[in-house]
Amino acid sequence: MRSRFHQGLDELRGRLLRMGGLAEQAVDRACQAYIDRDLNRCHQVLEGETQINLTEREIDELAFDLLAMQQPMAVDLRFILAVTKINADLERVGDQAVNIAERVMDMVELPKADLPVDIARMATAASAMVRRALESFIEGKAELAQAVLEMDNVVDRMRDDAFIRLVKTMNERPEVTRQALDALLIARNLERVADHATNIAEDVIFWVRGADVRHNVTQEAAAAQPSIPDTH
Amino acid sequence: MRSRFHQGLDELRGRLLRMGGLAEQAVDRACQAYIDRDLNRCHQVLEGETQINLTEREIDELAFDLLAMQQPMAVDLRFILAVTKINADLERVGDQAVNIAERVMDMVELPKADLPVDIARMATAASAMVRRALESFIEGKAELAQAVLEMDNVVDRMRDDAFIRLVKTMNERPEVTRQALDALLIARNLERVADHATNIAEDVIFWVRGADVRHNVTQEAAAAQPSIPDTH
Repeated sequence: MRSRFHQGLDELRGRLLRMGGLAEQAVDRACQAYIDRDLNRCHQVLEGETQINLTEREIDELAFDLLAMQQPMAVDLRFILAVTKINADLERVGDQAVNIAERVMDMVELPKADLPVDIARMATAASAMVRRALESFIEGKAELAQAVLEMDNVVDRMRDDAFIRLVKTMNERPEVTRQALDALLIARNLERVADHATNIAEDVIFWVRGADVRHNVTQEAAAAQPSIPDTH
Repeated sequence: MRSRFHQGLDELRGRLLRMGGLAEQAVDRACQAYIDRDLNRCHQVLEGETQINLTEREIDELAFDLLAMQQPMAVDLRFILAVTKINADLERVGDQAVNIAERVMDMVELPKADLPVDIARMATAASAMVRRALESFIEGKAELAQAVLEMDNVVDRMRDDAFIRLVKTMNERPEVTRQALDALLIARNLERVADHATNIAEDVIFWVRGADVRHNVTQEAAAAQPSIPDTH
């Protein structure tokens, strides 16, 4: 039978995955809204933010309760700290989706412009990074997380490429400056989504490798120390 | 005499303040580089990032060691978790400074353009928010943190204002499109600095109010539980 503490860790993992699902959905919706010029989807993204913020807070509270419940072993401690960091990054992925939705709402009010940027492709790449970073977390595999770090360069190149093309568009067709600027800012938001996926991958590596390296050391240290708290 | 654990908490606080100093300095340098079109200052910001990243990792390791050392009381637990979150935000303030420095490096290669945006004023406001958020942390005062949240609206308005003016400039003077875009992205980076200050202020409120509210509850819960770990 699993202890109450370990049931808590399972619950924490499950909630973080749901949080990841919400964040990914928000990005996908915002980019679909861009493609379809769909105001309804924009509003769904804005409304979804409340749920994401609430879930973030719940995960933090559960992490806090688990830390307060007992003195975790080093491997569990690193896991819980990694969860709180990943949680914060997922919330910010949700913020980026909101930023994209706001840009789309601006664009929909302007005449449709044909722009030299493939937002859908960038969105697919950025979403895939978030998904794989979460997979590396579920499976506890540093090598999967490492692959996410390498994908970041691809998204950065897409952003640089979009930047150059869209500035050229602004110069050549001043009548679509604002649309081009919206698209440029969306490309930048997607780059940030990729950056958050990178942060998550780094946290997974910190957790997995740190746990490998430090687990035994800390067990020895714990054995050498009394398990009752110091005076304070 | 203070316990080893409490000396550790003091050390953690001290390091976080140094981290805050580094992040603030990076933003100030990047904005001074913008004003003076100073490539040397840009390079200082890029080089300073290594130190900031290193300090972030050291703070995380110390927080980890403190949590592993003993079972902290609820108030200390919230403090340590708040530190790890504030730490991550300060590192990202440093990232924003790097982004600004990179935009300045782009601008310096282009002819100087007179642009309708007061970057210095925005930078002063954003820096002040970071400083006050850290002050609210040092003093543990939720009402100081609350004041930071209200300042965020001011910076958001400055950013909106910059956005409108600079898009107009791009339309009317296509020859300075790229400079205007650089300035617009710098304004956006400063808005993000303000957002991170807001996150820090929220973490301070979470720590201070949470500690007030939950401290006694958790002490009672701790008294009702054995202080040795569950089986796991």
